[in-house]
Amino acid sequence: MGKNRIKKHNKKLGKPPGSVIYTGNKSSKKLFIEAFDYNVERCNEKELTTIEEAFNFKGSDSVTWININGLNHVEEIEKLGNHFNLHPLVLEDIVSISQRPKIDEHEDYLFVVVKMLYHANDESIVAEQVSFVLGKGYVLSFQESEGDVFDAVRERIRQGKGRARSMQADYLLYILMDAIVDHYFTIIETLGEKIEDYEDAIFSGHVGKTINKDIQDLKREILRVRRAIFPLREVINRIEKHESPLILKKTKTFYRDIYDHLIQVSENIDIYREMIWSLMDMYMTTISNKMNEVMKVLTIMASIFIPLTFIAGIYGMNFDYIPELHYKNGYYILWCVMIAMFLGMLYYFKRKKWL
Amino acid sequence: MGKNRIKKHNKKLGKPPGSVIYTGNKSSKKLFIEAFDYNVERCNEKELTTIEEAFNFKGSDSVTWININGLNHVEEIEKLGNHFNLHPLVLEDIVSISQRPKIDEHEDYLFVVVKMLYHANDESIVAEQVSFVLGKGYVLSFQESEGDVFDAVRERIRQGKGRARSMQADYLLYILMDAIVDHYFTIIETLGEKIEDYEDAIFSGHVGKTINKDIQDLKREILRVRRAIFPLREVINRIEKHESPLILKKTKTFYRDIYDHLIQVSENIDIYREMIWSLMDMYMTTISNKMNEVMKVLTIMASIFIPLTFIAGIYGMNFDYIPELHYKNGYYILWCVMIAMFLGMLYYFKRKKWL
Amino acid sequence: MGKNRIKKHNKKLGKPPGSVIYTGNKSSKKLFIEAFDYNVERCNEKELTTIEEAFNFKGSDSVTWININGLNHVEEIEKLGNHFNLHPLVLEDIVSISQRPKIDEHEDYLFVVVKMLYHANDESIVAEQVSFVLGKGYVLSFQESEGDVFDAVRERIRQGKGRARSMQADYLLYILMDAIVDHYFTIIETLGEKIEDYEDAIFSGHVGKTINKDIQDLKREILRVRRAIFPLREVINRIEKHESPLILKKTKTFYRDIYDHLIQVSENIDIYREMIWSLMDMYMTTISNKMNEVMKVLTIMASIFIPLTFIAGIYGMNFDYIPELHYKNGYYILWCVMIAMFLGMLYYFKRKKWL
Amino acid sequence: MGKNRIKKHNKKLGKPPGSVIYTGNKSSKKLFIEAFDYNVERCNEKELTTIEEAFNFKGSDSVTWININGLNHVEEIEKLGNHFNLHPLVLEDIVSISQRPKIDEHEDYLFVVVKMLYHANDESIVAEQVSFVLGKGYVLSFQESEGDVFDAVRERIRQGKGRARSMQADYLLYILMDAIVDHYFTIIETLGEKIEDYEDAIFSGHVGKTINKDIQDLKREILRVRRAIFPLREVINRIEKHESPLILKKTKTFYRDIYDHLIQVSENIDIYREMIWSLMDMYMTTISNKMNEVMKVLTIMASIFIPLTFIAGIYGMNFDYIPELHYKNGYYILWCVMIAMFLGMLYYFKRKKWL
Amino acid sequence: MGKNRIKKHNKKLGKPPGSVIYTGNKSSKKLFIEAFDYNVERCNEKELTTIEEAFNFKGSDSVTWININGLNHVEEIEKLGNHFNLHPLVLEDIVSISQRPKIDEHEDYLFVVVKMLYHANDESIVAEQVSFVLGKGYVLSFQESEGDVFDAVRERIRQGKGRARSMQADYLLYILMDAIVDHYFTIIETLGEKIEDYEDAIFSGHVGKTINKDIQDLKREILRVRRAIFPLREVINRIEKHESPLILKKTKTFYRDIYDHLIQVSENIDIYREMIWSLMDMYMTTISNKMNEVMKVLTIMASIFIPLTFIAGIYGMNFDYIPELHYKNGYYILWCVMIAMFLGMLYYFKRKKWL
Repeated sequence: MGKNRIKKHNKKLGKPPGSVIYTGNKSSKKLFIEAFDYNVERCNEKELTTIEEAFNFKGSDSVTWININGLNHVEEIEKLGNHFNLHPLVLEDIVSISQRPKIDEHEDYLFVVVKMLYHANDESIVAEQVSFVLGKGYVLSFQESEGDVFDAVRERIRQGKGRARSMQADYLLYILMDAIVDHYFTIIETLGEKIEDYEDAIFSGHVGKTINKDIQDLKREILRVRRAIFPLREVINRIEKHESPLILKKTKTFYRDIYDHLIQVSENIDIYREMIWSLMDMYMTTISNKMNEVMKVLTIMASIFIPLTFIAGIYGMNFDYIPELHYKNGYYILWCVMIAMFLGMLYYFKRKKWL
Repeated sequence: MGKNRIKKHNKKLGKPPGSVIYTGNKSSKKLFIEAFDYNVERCNEKELTTIEEAFNFKGSDSVTWININGLNHVEEIEKLGNHFNLHPLVLEDIVSISQRPKIDEHEDYLFVVVKMLYHANDESIVAEQVSFVLGKGYVLSFQESEGDVFDAVRERIRQGKGRARSMQADYLLYILMDAIVDHYFTIIETLGEKIEDYEDAIFSGHVGKTINKDIQDLKREILRVRRAIFPLREVINRIEKHESPLILKKTKTFYRDIYDHLIQVSENIDIYREMIWSLMDMYMTTISNKMNEVMKVLTIMASIFIPLTFIAGIYGMNFDYIPELHYKNGYYILWCVMIAMFLGMLYYFKRKKWL
Repeated sequence: MGKNRIKKHNKKLGKPPGSVIYTGNKSSKKLFIEAFDYNVERCNEKELTTIEEAFNFKGSDSVTWININGLNHVEEIEKLGNHFNLHPLVLEDIVSISQRPKIDEHEDYLFVVVKMLYHANDESIVAEQVSFVLGKGYVLSFQESEGDVFDAVRERIRQGKGRARSMQADYLLYILMDAIVDHYFTIIETLGEKIEDYEDAIFSGHVGKTINKDIQDLKREILRVRRAIFPLREVINRIEKHESPLILKKTKTFYRDIYDHLIQVSENIDIYREMIWSLMDMYMTTISNKMNEVMKVLTIMASIFIPLTFIAGIYGMNFDYIPELHYKNGYYILWCVMIAMFLGMLYYFKRKKWL
Repeated sequence: MGKNRIKKHNKKLGKPPGSVIYTGNKSSKKLFIEAFDYNVERCNEKELTTIEEAFNFKGSDSVTWININGLNHVEEIEKLGNHFNLHPLVLEDIVSISQRPKIDEHEDYLFVVVKMLYHANDESIVAEQVSFVLGKGYVLSFQESEGDVFDAVRERIRQGKGRARSMQADYLLYILMDAIVDHYFTIIETLGEKIEDYEDAIFSGHVGKTINKDIQDLKREILRVRRAIFPLREVINRIEKHESPLILKKTKTFYRDIYDHLIQVSENIDIYREMIWSLMDMYMTTISNKMNEVMKVLTIMASIFIPLTFIAGIYGMNFDYIPELHYKNGYYILWCVMIAMFLGMLYYFKRKKWL
Repeated sequence: MGKNRIKKHNKKLGKPPGSVIYTGNKSSKKLFIEAFDYNVERCNEKELTTIEEAFNFKGSDSVTWININGLNHVEEIEKLGNHFNLHPLVLEDIVSISQRPKIDEHEDYLFVVVKMLYHANDESIVAEQVSFVLGKGYVLSFQESEGDVFDAVRERIRQGKGRARSMQADYLLYILMDAIVDHYFTIIETLGEKIEDYEDAIFSGHVGKTINKDIQDLKREILRVRRAIFPLREVINRIEKHESPLILKKTKTFYRDIYDHLIQVSENIDIYREMIWSLMDMYMTTISNKMNEVMKVLTIMASIFIPLTFIAGIYGMNFDYIPELHYKNGYYILWCVMIAMFLGMLYYFKRKKWL
């Protein structure tokens, strides 16, 4: 993914700054715009067909959430951006999907970039970029494609239970980000399970041929999740410290709560990181232990039979005069000697705990 | 446990923030409420049957400690919280048992989350969450289930010896937290003993099959204890720096004392961490040393007997004319040669310090 | 390169500070000077033949970019420096090509040193030093030799599209630095690909003889790129915080954008660093695994045939009386015994999963 | 020691804070109190028999040093503490010998805990806790038992040479602490020598059976010394920055000097730490090298004699017709062939640099 | 050296602070004093025979550099120190040659301790302590013995070219320190070359017996150079920030330049440190690779000849009836079988890439 991310950036090489160019690869996605306009009494939910319909929501007294899916529709996004007076670099960042989580504090609005993590169908972790613009009375959200973690949020706004509809736009941004952060827990749970699976495999000795690569891939996945989550702490921190009417004092307690969750997730990730480093060590120890076992078998076999073979060789010699050969029970005596040597060896290896 | 902790969180996925949901798994525990109301002259100790009985203690001149066991009784806790004007997020945190140690400074009260560490019956370390609310003249404490480390505190309040009853609620919170921190020493003592046991096992070579896994588990247990203890330093630090009538200046010296203890515990944990990293290294060296020994035995046996077998092979050949075979004492001379070779080899290996 | 860099420094050993001495090794390069003088309406592009022609641009109302290639022409550079009132140490730094990226804030101008990274013809990464002087209405840039990453910038100035010609000199410096930073992405992409190539080689077992050295070289290349890029973050940060009419407030948002890019690049580099450390570990595991396989073959062969050879040896002995030798089907019985032993061994190794 | 230290703490489990309980194990030591009372003209040195005799020194114009040995005499120490108005927690810390070096700044006095390191008779390093109370005109010092590093200080006070008697109590505290810090150099010198001894042993191959454990023990000893010394830097730093008449400005230069010494010691300890980590690596390499050597001997012996034995085996076969057996000089020719093979092998191994 | 440094310190054990005691071992060096007194017009250079001659330079309008070689002449140094009002601890530090680079800011003068690094005749790196005292109009410098890196400085002062003679004493201190820092580049160049030599040796397999120790020694040398250079950054930083007429504003730019050089050197040292850690890893891999090769030879030889020997053994048996022995071409058929087995084995090992 590191590679991909960088390649995406290259699309813009040589372009002037502020060029609004979609850097993702889902360029055939259709545009989907939905709007929620609500106050404590009512809630209008609507799917918009043109971006221009969204313009009216600006300046209304109610709280408005406009959610745009389809970052490839750069023209519509530019139109919206111009209407809402967004800085060209903000528009560039919205459609440039390789952003780090960050916050830009502008005069009239806050611009926040977050990574939404979820599992794709093939169990791999997808990090989709979601950008939020929090202005006076509205939140704009931009996603690459449909499908998100906001369904519970939508339901809560529709039903108007709890605080959801009685608070301002800053609280709306909070519940959206809270939904994203809550999903991080699901993601790292899977990572933790994978680590335990590998651990069990290594301890039980049933490691596949690709264990080395698997561990490496997992390590990289953890690094990737880490990179998506860690900068968000600073973002939340800056929201909490932000001084403008956009963020009300009473909402800050809630952002503090997200922050605490992020710290929890971060700690888990760092523990996983440490655990995965240990995995390689354990694997190495396992290999060494196995080699030890192999060597012991070889040594036991060789140490027992090489001397015996030597003795047999002695009495296979053709010297004219080897007295033992003519002893009456020479052959049987020799067998006794050999068996004694064999048992002695066994005893020796037993004492050394090799058997 | 990492996994468990995260799974608990998932219970709340999609729920609105401030939802007071118990995330533990002791949902059949009965509610137990005890109250201590004391000043320097008297001390009333009482077990309450309903949460409403606790309401009267608010606003009294004496110091009150209300201790609630049974976080699954969320409704009672909510009632109490509402009576004491606690923020919904505080109530959520009280019953959500996967909190990190933290402090939230509210206008009328301090909310502190601590991990109480003790040994379960099977010697494993249990980290039970204890939440404290320190208000004007009262301390509320919330525990998941009965059984805690506060018996000595109760006794001290009853007997009224020393400072216990002549100080304010901030001192009560101090002695409760001090009791928890004092128990940390017991916990890390056990960890230290385990490390030494493994060390002895590795040095003496009597390692079980699961040593690899055991070390790994211990490493994880240390990480877990670390995570329970380390954030508490910041909590105590913030209490010490807290500027409100809730924390009196003369009590701060005592919190400083807890802080010093925490630093001591933290240092020990970090030393244990370093020691356990070394354990794997030592184990690896031990394995390599053993393999060395195995290889030496093999090499000695093979180096001695393979050449001798070769010589025996020579005189087992059926050439028409091998003069040595017809020497008078050929057989005896050969034995002498072989014994000489044998001794030469022994001397060689002795000199190489392999024997 | 570490060595080279230091040797270059030695050229100046014993020289007084402020000595303007070219420390590179491209001393036969010819001087190339180009000038762009533009405002929002017009743009004059000109190749200058003498350094004196550049003097006139100072003090004009338009924005001027003077780009000098050929750091070996120290006299011309000194002349220019004196005309623009540059500090002697600045001139020394311009031609001393082993500088770290840095910014010196002087009263009338900013002096910025940056490393321009690009691929040489042999795929190696070249770090060419580019120095910028940003003064009122002009930017001077100094490069060691012709060939740079500024072609897109030149084109944008010529065509006057977008913001390029309507902004001040601080914006010109921004687009020049932005072009350099954008190229960093190309560089680290190649590094990432190399790491993946080595990883694949190690996993597939097709490692060349020099894999050890290759990994080492790559590690060093990453360190080198890191050293060129990391200090630039601080430089950009200081530009953003710079308080003087040289940097306008509205341009700072753009520098912030470069900063974000640098953080992205830096994160990637650190991930690559971690990955390359893992490579050695993986390689080591691979070697151990191979040795394990070798040992198994040896052990299987020896364990099977050494006992069999011993038995054959027994019946090659010349005792007067060995009853088995005279059994009717002795030879065939023996073969049966031997085949049974052989199969038994095979079964044993199969069960141990060595086969 | 980690374990011991913690066990000591447990003695106090459940006791109220401020309980003055001796946590060491030298409970039969007799109390020894000495007092120095001096100014620039005179010096009274006296051994006190009861703690009450010390009370008179408080408030005198001269500088007084009261040195108490025997922390098990808690009652006397409490009496003294009450007379000098020491906080109960200070008294608790004085007799609780597992303190970390620290400073507590009280209104009328400074309380400093330091670890005095010296070699016991069995060469092990002892870390004895010394507590100082610096008040107006007096220094109290508390040691667990007799025997310390202050003899040179006593002598200097008696003789009144140099600054010793013309300065205030803050200077007295300085020379006492300086004496302790000077001894740290002796301690770490021994550690350095031990590391070099182990290094030499590993390089020369004369490692004992317990080298693994020895290195581990040394590592732990270094950690322990580190823990005794590192926090002291912060203590000295706080004394230097302390703003009260207790520490005069002119004395601060001297504390700065101690600080510089501590930094030197700390650097050495960290270098030793790094060196001891390398020791394990080196030891591992040595083991691997040895195994290499063992394997070479085995391989050479086996590679030479196994083929020769095969040839001898060939001509030991009983085929009816093996023409070579009847050659005239068959036996001698075979010997030549075998010797040629032997030499060929030797040459091969020589070329491979195995011999 | 670590050990030596500490032993030197011990010379002072028990001595009162401020004792001016030479801790080096060049106690027979003769005293050498030279003085440069100059302003922009003239320059007096003089070798002084007694320390008293130096007294006159204090208070002159010109800039004076007094350079004293021979720290064993403590009495002369004390005389000088008293005349220039140096603090006793400063004098102690001047002759105590185990100081860390540091700066002490006194009221009338700055005291700076620097390590001058150069190569001794036997290629080892010598770290000689040089102390500077910068006062109003003068610089005192103290060296252990004759021979330094200041010859270029002396020449520049004599010739009066450039800024050298037109600036104040702070600039004189700058060019002296600059000369020292410039020499650091030479030192680390040698270290870099050594690392590359070892790398080449390890890669080519031509490692000496002492490679382990050599790498270890180099690692320690790097640590030592690091310790001499790193604290100097802070020293320079403090000079730059120093607020007194001793350091003029226009000179600070020059100190900034030294700082930049130090950062460059520091970065190189840290890269070398990382490289030398890798060296051990690489060496370990090389050993493992070699053992792999040894094992392969053994395995190939044993796997080929042990089965063949077994077959030869079969037909060496003395059974009454072994039909193959009486086949007409039995012997030749057997040879064919054996050669076939031999070739089969070769093919097998070829396919496994062992040959």
